[in-house]
Amino acid sequence: MTAVTYELIKTCKQSGARLGRIHTPHGSIETPIFMPVGTLATVKTLSPEELEEMGSQIILSNTYHLWLRPGEDIIEEAGGLHSFMNWKKPILTDSGGFQVFSLSDLRDIKEEGVHFRNHISGEKLFLSPEKAMQIQNSLGSDIMMAFDECPPYPAERDYMKKSVERTSRWAERCLEAHKNTEKQAVFGIVQGGEYEDLRKQSAEDLISLDFPGYAVGGLSVGEPKDVMNKVLEFTTPLLPEEKPRYLMGVGSADSLIDGVIRGIDMFDCVLPTRVARNGTCMTSTGRVVVRNAKYARDFGPLDENCSCHVCRNYSRAYIRHLVKCNETFGFRLTSYHNLYFLLELMEQVRQAIREDRLLDFRDEVFEKYGFNKPGAKNF
Amino acid sequence: MTAVTYELIKTCKQSGARLGRIHTPHGSIETPIFMPVGTLATVKTLSPEELEEMGSQIILSNTYHLWLRPGEDIIEEAGGLHSFMNWKKPILTDSGGFQVFSLSDLRDIKEEGVHFRNHISGEKLFLSPEKAMQIQNSLGSDIMMAFDECPPYPAERDYMKKSVERTSRWAERCLEAHKNTEKQAVFGIVQGGEYEDLRKQSAEDLISLDFPGYAVGGLSVGEPKDVMNKVLEFTTPLLPEEKPRYLMGVGSADSLIDGVIRGIDMFDCVLPTRVARNGTCMTSTGRVVVRNAKYARDFGPLDENCSCHVCRNYSRAYIRHLVKCNETFGFRLTSYHNLYFLLELMEQVRQAIREDRLLDFRDEVFEKYGFNKPGAKNF
Ligand SMILES: [Zn+2]
Ligand SMILES: [Zn+2]
Repeated sequence: MTAVTYELIKTCKQSGARLGRIHTPHGSIETPIFMPVGTLATVKTLSPEELEEMGSQIILSNTYHLWLRPGEDIIEEAGGLHSFMNWKKPILTDSGGFQVFSLSDLRDIKEEGVHFRNHISGEKLFLSPEKAMQIQNSLGSDIMMAFDECPPYPAERDYMKKSVERTSRWAERCLEAHKNTEKQAVFGIVQGGEYEDLRKQSAEDLISLDFPGYAVGGLSVGEPKDVMNKVLEFTTPLLPEEKPRYLMGVGSADSLIDGVIRGIDMFDCVLPTRVARNGTCMTSTGRVVVRNAKYARDFGPLDENCSCHVCRNYSRAYIRHLVKCNETFGFRLTSYHNLYFLLELMEQVRQAIREDRLLDFRDEVFEKYGFNKPGAKNF
Repeated sequence: MTAVTYELIKTCKQSGARLGRIHTPHGSIETPIFMPVGTLATVKTLSPEELEEMGSQIILSNTYHLWLRPGEDIIEEAGGLHSFMNWKKPILTDSGGFQVFSLSDLRDIKEEGVHFRNHISGEKLFLSPEKAMQIQNSLGSDIMMAFDECPPYPAERDYMKKSVERTSRWAERCLEAHKNTEKQAVFGIVQGGEYEDLRKQSAEDLISLDFPGYAVGGLSVGEPKDVMNKVLEFTTPLLPEEKPRYLMGVGSADSLIDGVIRGIDMFDCVLPTRVARNGTCMTSTGRVVVRNAKYARDFGPLDENCSCHVCRNYSRAYIRHLVKCNETFGFRLTSYHNLYFLLELMEQVRQAIREDRLLDFRDEVFEKYGFNKPGAKNF
């Protein structure tokens, strides 16, 4: 018995999207779900109580960052990440692989693992499947991710094939190195870029290892949106129906809905909190750059259709004032609203699946948000 | 009938300190009280809900800063400061005088008011008794402060005498300019530096104008602690017993207790939140610089004797990690704890007055905190 299991509740008759439930040692998650990102054991600006209040069911934290600061040994001594950061619900940790490839310029990929430099201090570091598992075992996350290579977009076919094969060998080593199988589960990551045959090869390799869940990696790395959709269309059907599917690094409303339609159950992204700290809000009628002068005397809520704590109590004028003055509380308010907006969107997505009308729902959201307009920004 | 009244409940038999209640249009305040400072319509890093949860009865906001950003007209249009920032309890606003004298190098003090430059943009500005009242009327604070000159420490006797006399003339103009006497009250500010006869002259001038409350100004501006205590000892007896007394700019535990013993009812200071943003905490056993390496594996609370939300849920090790990583949530936690610490201290002070044992309480706090040690820091 694995620590994490998936229960398929129903499939949307209109779209084929999945409604499900993931059971973990820290409780169950209704899917499809968006996971807020708490890189350094904190979802930037917010408290665990606020995350729970807004409906977060699971959060993601970053192995690479926690390994460097404060160090996984300190978190283990604190009783694990849940206890360290006072978050009682499920946690997913990534493997650190993505950060090695995105934050470090100097890296040397070998069969054994990756040699690279600390992006803060420049110190030499080494990350391998075994090390990534050891760190995540120390952190005690419910869902761990296998250590993979995340190739850039675009990548040559030959390089991609070698990378996919190495990622498969690393995946096997991850399962062997995993020490806490009763309380933690490891998900495999399907790579292969935009090459259908390589995605197939990667999926088959990983399925033969029988992971309790699978991520689709190597997307949202700069490729056009139709490439992402196309890759999902030929990748998710390769994955077993009885396991959860996780699309990494996606957090705009349009891509969330389009991912769910293509069979995805889980998403994460820093987008909502990152843009919030720049004073940009996601609303049901499109994005609102609240620092703009036109909101100086706008005493309405960020989003008239939002019932979050922020929209019920604070005006655009007040939030604009705080953001303009660089006041922390302003960024708390925009971060809270943006995360609530995506979590609430996913609740609506789940409801649309229940009602077999996810394609209709997509049309409604896209029309209202303005995604259909020429040159529309996707958040 | 004035908008704000004071009710003396009892006097401590051991110390002479006052237990009282201030009634305002937004509710009553138990005194002695510490008022958290929300300069720009936000107590830095914290929400109104958190301020209420930790026991804040009244907050202070700064007229000068709100006049510049977002402008008092916007706040008035929002329905006043309470509505703008979603704080339902009493608010005190200062007059802007202190900022004119502390933030601006270029100023020209005339009988009509003060010409100076905006500390952000350099723009020429003019503040007068009439303007300070108009701004505070727009803000809608429960307690407004008269526009005064806050002379530096030390100041020549001749200069101080002229300044005190001008401040008295300005005080009279403030009362004349005040437009909302039913919902807002203006407190006078006694000046005079360390000169007993000038403090007496200032107090008599202001008392003849019959303000509903009096502040002792011009202290906590760099003078030694024994000078502050001495000035309080000859100033507070000059003030009417049936009016509240407010010592401006004081927020260390020792000075709060020493001020109460000398007849003060209200205090404000940025100290607890300012040091919090540097990772320094006030605790019952002295200050804790939580960013220090020695707390890296300290899984105990900031203060073992504190029952605040932070101390009940988060460890020094976690808070240190957040502060070291410059994570907003760390500064939220240290700010919350520090304010709670002072608010709880004042609750204990009120209890000690009820029990006629404030001098004993002072000894206990000073011994435990370490204020009696040679070279002790006062926060
Ligand atoms: Zn909202
Ligand atoms: Zn505390």
